[in-house]
Amino acid sequence: DFRQYFLEMHPYDQSVYFLEQPKEKRLLIYSFLSPGELAEVMINIELEDISPFITEMDPRMAAQILAEMPADDAVDILNELDKEKVVSYLTIMNEEAANEIKQLLHYEEKTAGSIMTTEYIAFYETQTVKEAMQQLKVEAPDAETINYLYVLDNDKRLVGVLSIRDLIIAADDALLKEIMSEKLVTVSVARDQEEIAAMFMDYDLLALPVVDFQNHLLGIITVDDILDVMEEEANEDYSKLAAISETDRPSSSPFSAAKSRLPWLIVLSFLGMLTASLIGKFEETLDQVAVLAIFIPLIAGMAGNTGTQALAVAVRGLATGDYGNLSKWTMIMREALTGLITGFVCGLVITGIIYFWKGDIFLGLLVGASIMASLVVATLAGSFVPLLMDRLNIDPAVASGPFITTINDIISIFIYFGMATAFMGYLM
Amino acid sequence: DFRQYFLEMHPYDQSVYFLEQPKEKRLLIYSFLSPGELAEVMINIELEDISPFITEMDPRMAAQILAEMPADDAVDILNELDKEKVVSYLTIMNEEAANEIKQLLHYEEKTAGSIMTTEYIAFYETQTVKEAMQQLKVEAPDAETINYLYVLDNDKRLVGVLSIRDLIIAADDALLKEIMSEKLVTVSVARDQEEIAAMFMDYDLLALPVVDFQNHLLGIITVDDILDVMEEEANEDYSKLAAISETDRPSSSPFSAAKSRLPWLIVLSFLGMLTASLIGKFEETLDQVAVLAIFIPLIAGMAGNTGTQALAVAVRGLATGDYGNLSKWTMIMREALTGLITGFVCGLVITGIIYFWKGDIFLGLLVGASIMASLVVATLAGSFVPLLMDRLNIDPAVASGPFITTINDIISIFIYFGMATAFMGYLM
Ligand SMILES: [Mg+2]
Ligand SMILES: [Mg+2]
Ligand SMILES: [Mg+2]
Ligand SMILES: [Mg+2]
Ligand SMILES: [Mg+2]
Ligand SMILES: [Mg+2]
Ligand SMILES: [Mg+2]
Ligand SMILES: [Mg+2]
Ligand SMILES: [Mg+2]
Ligand SMILES: [Mg+2]
Ligand SMILES: [Mg+2]
Ligand SMILES: [Mg+2]
Ligand SMILES: [Mg+2]
Repeated sequence: DFRQYFLEMHPYDQSVYFLEQPKEKRLLIYSFLSPGELAEVMINIELEDISPFITEMDPRMAAQILAEMPADDAVDILNELDKEKVVSYLTIMNEEAANEIKQLLHYEEKTAGSIMTTEYIAFYETQTVKEAMQQLKVEAPDAETINYLYVLDNDKRLVGVLSIRDLIIAADDALLKEIMSEKLVTVSVARDQEEIAAMFMDYDLLALPVVDFQNHLLGIITVDDILDVMEEEANEDYSKLAAISETDRPSSSPFSAAKSRLPWLIVLSFLGMLTASLIGKFEETLDQVAVLAIFIPLIAGMAGNTGTQALAVAVRGLATGDYGNLSKWTMIMREALTGLITGFVCGLVITGIIYFWKGDIFLGLLVGASIMASLVVATLAGSFVPLLMDRLNIDPAVASGPFITTINDIISIFIYFGMATAFMGYLM
Repeated sequence: DFRQYFLEMHPYDQSVYFLEQPKEKRLLIYSFLSPGELAEVMINIELEDISPFITEMDPRMAAQILAEMPADDAVDILNELDKEKVVSYLTIMNEEAANEIKQLLHYEEKTAGSIMTTEYIAFYETQTVKEAMQQLKVEAPDAETINYLYVLDNDKRLVGVLSIRDLIIAADDALLKEIMSEKLVTVSVARDQEEIAAMFMDYDLLALPVVDFQNHLLGIITVDDILDVMEEEANEDYSKLAAISETDRPSSSPFSAAKSRLPWLIVLSFLGMLTASLIGKFEETLDQVAVLAIFIPLIAGMAGNTGTQALAVAVRGLATGDYGNLSKWTMIMREALTGLITGFVCGLVITGIIYFWKGDIFLGLLVGASIMASLVVATLAGSFVPLLMDRLNIDPAVASGPFITTINDIISIFIYFGMATAFMGYLM
């Protein structure tokens, strides 16, 4: 029958199947499955898509499902719903689950507190391996993970950690404090999720305990949620580099896509108008040497491209901590030198091409020198802006490619026409 | 003493400490620690940095260290070394480890085979829980993970999986085939690592078995290595969007940075020259209406920015599978509509600004209409190029922002001057 067919699938495949059903069929599924089984389906659906399903169910059912999930997942779902809805679900729910969820709802988004779960297993250091194994058999079914087991002292402070492997290979009568590892990696409850993901990578963790300032264990973060964090953070940086919003996906409507792209484009139009009025200031130069106009896109384009490269290296370096011990000044000097080298080479190539094409060495030198100067300045701007933002405690990723490109349009055109005006005599 | 102080640190912190030491100190560390202890230090060092350490040691020591590591990590390190070095280490190494490594060295980079390890634990379906637990106590210390245990039939085909939790809560005399889960998620040995990472996210896996076409278990992939894959793939996409190479990091020298950026910039210079010669073709138009020059960067810039937005949405959509059931034609239509809406709004805004600024409605309409047409075409180009690449089985991420931007410079300028030439009468 249907119930059996459905439950034989992997929970993720259940959720894929569920998402393909029309509303009548979904209502049937709700009646066939237990709240615990439905909870498994729900935690595999993407957060953005989940609220209509929760709200189309009987509220008691929804509350039971939320209570059956790992508390951290229930909190993620509740964060997507209206405030009144959240309150009403928490009121119908059994008290224990409601309290656990309320605790987690307090923590700020994207911090350790918001991604941790309170369903961990902890022992006291004075217990024996045998006692721990017995307790484990009882508690294992409800725990988020049993790969790491935490060890507390009498004041409930975290003093050690055991892997399930340590416990299995230990002698029955050994005390936990004899076999536990005291090499603890912990994280405070307010820590940013991106830094936490880096710790999982560095230390090859499967779970990480979250503690308060007195080292009391508050919860644990598990690696499955860190995969989602990494995806989310990578998406964020990628989207910002291209100046799109994270909700702009191929499946969203053209209207919502346009709505999310337009604010950026309008700001950039105004910056573009600045460029136009800047060139307008050099109208006299342009009237006298009309050929100057044809190299505008080349110079602005090259400056934009170099700026984007420098920006991406800086943002990525800040995100991965690759700056290490380098001071920001060293960084700026390094980019200045990189800009000089790339500028010199590109300037030379372009001077050569223009000389052969137009037979005018002065024009070639002017464009080549402008490219060189623009590339140095654009490279510096591309790396300086994110470093500055980082110093001001703003996420450096907000400095998007299009923004830096448009700024560099203005700078490079100023350099080009400035030089052309200064050396006008040679060009005519 | 030093040995004790060093070993009390977490292996990752040991590697951080190790990396800070000068060569003499490192040689001392090699003599203080056992090959197994040194293997722990080495697997926590980033791959790009590791070869000098391996080659500065006594080759026998290096071979022993490589033999002590998980085979997948040893393979990663060997892939960074010269071919002759690899052969010589494999010759000195004990035969069992060498064979395991040789097997893995055959698989292509970035496939399941190259990231899997052969150190898994497997039982037969006819064993009891008690037998399995006894075997586990013996094999656990050498296994990569004991969180998942694999169950084979008599032909050594994979038929089920057990979590360590299932085994612990089961009755001693139950048969494994009674308690194992047959909901197996497996992957073939040639599968791409990026698709595998997506499976870990979807199914919340900690480990994934790798099988051949007859369902024989070849190895397992563990989640710690998937975190590295996700970082690597996110970096790849981000770098390509900005047209930088992945080796271009803030800590690399200006010369190597310039060397990796220049090929891109030189290609883009040539494309930029195309733009220049295109404007050259419209010299007559430009001579008659010189004011046209001042809007070149605005139009090219807007087209470049919209193109980058559309590109990023398409690349990300292809990477995350967000296209789902949408056909590519639906996608192109959607982007065409998005381009029309953004183009219409921006065109209107810009027409208005120019009218108030220059008092010339025809100029305003010309620039506004050019922006509108350019935005439609640029949006289409931004989404069409990655879709085309995907169809041709090329990674769509190679369509970088600067490349699309430069293509869109050319297209938009052609539209602008083409329209200006056509409607010349109204402008003079
Ligand atoms: Mg959460
Ligand atoms: Mg962040
Ligand atoms: Mg790692
Ligand atoms: Mg969780
Ligand atoms: Mg989860
Ligand atoms: Mg970030
Ligand atoms: Mg541009
Ligand atoms: Mg590998
Ligand atoms: Mg790839
Ligand atoms: Mg997941
Ligand atoms: Mg591994
Ligand atoms: Mg690893
Ligand atoms: Mg990719």
